[in-house]
Amino acid sequence: MKKVSIIGAGLVGSLLAIYLTRRNYKVTLFERRGDMRKVGVAAGRSINLALSDRGIRALREVGIMQEIEKIAIPMYGRQMHNMDGSSPFQPYGKENQCIHSVSRGELNKQLMSLAEQHGARIVFNKPLQHIAFDERTLHFEDGSTETSDLIFGSDGAYAASRLSHQLQHNRFQYHQYYIDFGYKELHIPPGPNGSFQMEKNALHIWPRGNYMLIALPNPDGSFTCTLFFPFEGNPSFASLDTAEKARQFFNDTFSDASALMPSLEEDFMQNPTSSLVTVKCFPWIRQDYFALIGDAAHAIVPFFGQGMNCGFEDCAVLNELIDVHHEDWNQILQAYQTLRKPDGDAIADLALANFVEMRDKVAHPAFLLQKKIEAAFSERYPDQWTPAYSMVTFRPDLRYSEALHRGNHQESIMRKVMAMPDIENKWNSEEVHAFILQQIH
Amino acid sequence: MKKVSIIGAGLVGSLLAIYLTRRNYKVTLFERRGDMRKVGVAAGRSINLALSDRGIRALREVGIMQEIEKIAIPMYGRQMHNMDGSSPFQPYGKENQCIHSVSRGELNKQLMSLAEQHGARIVFNKPLQHIAFDERTLHFEDGSTETSDLIFGSDGAYAASRLSHQLQHNRFQYHQYYIDFGYKELHIPPGPNGSFQMEKNALHIWPRGNYMLIALPNPDGSFTCTLFFPFEGNPSFASLDTAEKARQFFNDTFSDASALMPSLEEDFMQNPTSSLVTVKCFPWIRQDYFALIGDAAHAIVPFFGQGMNCGFEDCAVLNELIDVHHEDWNQILQAYQTLRKPDGDAIADLALANFVEMRDKVAHPAFLLQKKIEAAFSERYPDQWTPAYSMVTFRPDLRYSEALHRGNHQESIMRKVMAMPDIENKWNSEEVHAFILQQIH
Repeated sequence: MKKVSIIGAGLVGSLLAIYLTRRNYKVTLFERRGDMRKVGVAAGRSINLALSDRGIRALREVGIMQEIEKIAIPMYGRQMHNMDGSSPFQPYGKENQCIHSVSRGELNKQLMSLAEQHGARIVFNKPLQHIAFDERTLHFEDGSTETSDLIFGSDGAYAASRLSHQLQHNRFQYHQYYIDFGYKELHIPPGPNGSFQMEKNALHIWPRGNYMLIALPNPDGSFTCTLFFPFEGNPSFASLDTAEKARQFFNDTFSDASALMPSLEEDFMQNPTSSLVTVKCFPWIRQDYFALIGDAAHAIVPFFGQGMNCGFEDCAVLNELIDVHHEDWNQILQAYQTLRKPDGDAIADLALANFVEMRDKVAHPAFLLQKKIEAAFSERYPDQWTPAYSMVTFRPDLRYSEALHRGNHQESIMRKVMAMPDIENKWNSEEVHAFILQQIH
Repeated sequence: MKKVSIIGAGLVGSLLAIYLTRRNYKVTLFERRGDMRKVGVAAGRSINLALSDRGIRALREVGIMQEIEKIAIPMYGRQMHNMDGSSPFQPYGKENQCIHSVSRGELNKQLMSLAEQHGARIVFNKPLQHIAFDERTLHFEDGSTETSDLIFGSDGAYAASRLSHQLQHNRFQYHQYYIDFGYKELHIPPGPNGSFQMEKNALHIWPRGNYMLIALPNPDGSFTCTLFFPFEGNPSFASLDTAEKARQFFNDTFSDASALMPSLEEDFMQNPTSSLVTVKCFPWIRQDYFALIGDAAHAIVPFFGQGMNCGFEDCAVLNELIDVHHEDWNQILQAYQTLRKPDGDAIADLALANFVEMRDKVAHPAFLLQKKIEAAFSERYPDQWTPAYSMVTFRPDLRYSEALHRGNHQESIMRKVMAMPDIENKWNSEEVHAFILQQIH
């Protein structure tokens, strides 16, 4: 029975522990923070996540989706809140296709408890100091050590495990890219008797060109809101430097949301402003005994709602490879890296591109028309066309890299379609469909 | 009189010291290594550099080019050594245009002595530990400290100053990219009476598709050779693991060079194999008191022969900005970064692309034909067309970013020209020139 150490008991580390304990590995998770089931989550950092099909598939695989479903709220599309007061609803996919709002904290607690129920041990308040790779030994900040057969680094975007790996590696490829935008969490409380003050089953977006506010529902009737906003310039986190300015700005810019935010002033001034980083690195593995997984291997921006889903998919892919390679970890880790590195790169690029879509394009009629054309064509020729968003979100059978590749090709076709004369009127015509069919082949 | 600390007394740091002492700044250079004028350069790391017009302009500006010229050998083009025994000569530019072979060690010694003559102080054996930016204070590994008004980090691709800057900076953009190739220095000794055993005034290249050998002349009649070679695979540094295999490989692959390398076996086994990194980062500066310069700001691969030239140009640009902004260092450093960051990025990309040109394309007839067409057209219409190599190498009036931009445009035109029917015969015809003219505008 191989001994496995997992650094970081976050979402991905906890799920990985479930996968491996089910295969009778002896798993210990080492978590830097305290047990959030006892000490609570840091205020203003609770953040909501959008669980979608790739993540769901990975949870189903180990039979825990029914547990998670209890804390998830389906969202069937984007509820826009435009400056002109209009609020069009844009479905994410076909009927019944949805993504799920879940609280990061609640989901993490559930996964930790499930990991323990499966036999994993979690050691809290155990920050990693460094890894002595030759001895396969973890050294913790408190001076203690742990030696194991297999080590996974699932300690997130700023992983200590990755830093240790990098510092002891020749010719390590490393890229970190911060966008000039940060985010801050805000809050819309429940209405009377735990009612929802806006549409419950939607992801709300206030697209404003260079920035945006979003809101995701919680089971208690509240919404967790996130403002994605420039660090510098006007307006920016730097320019809104008093509670009064923040309230005034919200009244002017997000008036319907502002009316539902009694604690805006305190939230805005007290909640941290966090940054958004993309990390790409290589290699992710060492021989038969070390791998980075989840954000530690490929931190991405949140605009495609895929960070967690991608990390969960890492676990599912790794699990399949254990069967394929009959527990030969040299081959398993090599195949894992070969398969997942291009997919991690692809979703990183897709996520960056989607920021512009969410904060700006969704507010433009041409964009909505394009989406309508794609949806209509895809409805009629489902084998010929799946919109890029749907490939990423609802088609776990397609790799991210394939979704990126096909999506780029489709986008180049749609650029030609949108340039057709009178496209506004003939958007759902035989002519347009014939043109698209011809372009595909 | 402002007190300036420069970290690293390499080529760029030493030249920067000359620029600043001439303006009556009180300059101290802190160098990690010992004084190479006394202790000598580490064996097998002497490496030759190609000094070209951008670097020369920066040296002229402070009146030291005549000193440097004494140790420089002009190279008027590439002397190819093909597998089939042919050895075409490809001029770098127009008649009399050349680049200069200089020994890194000799040049560095000269620049250090000139810096001291100008009044700079160099402290050797003084590795930087970290910078306390708030106090503008350097902390050295030996526990000593130094506080100054201005700090420059010119400590190279693996700069300790950059690491310190990065670790104390929010949202630092950082990219390091290693190619899968390393390099090893080899040696061709002088012939009888200090004669040159190959053409003296050329940069010799043995292009072999996936790898190459180059040789640059030294004043003593010897050539410094560099093998750029894959780390892994076959052939590679990993596969040539004995002196016998190395000699056999050289006999088979670089037969004319091999015959001139009596010490190949020792050189190959004893000289280090070095890696090749590209570093891009941002920001380069802090307010009015800190800037990265040279490789510390923008490490690039050596295939365009521009690493040193770019660093020297950094110094010249900075110097101009001191006048423009009347010693307002806040404005100077801001303008320096704004101007030079896109140029550093551009030459990094150009240098990576040139590796494929040097090791592979130069051996193909189509490439040589394309160069001939460009040269002929440029000769006839010098205001309309400067080949990309010439823009980078002989046109210091053009920014690297402009050279990259124009070069890409020209390359897209040349792709069309090369696809013209019967181009082999009509390459210097009115028809081709008319076509290019029309494409330019």
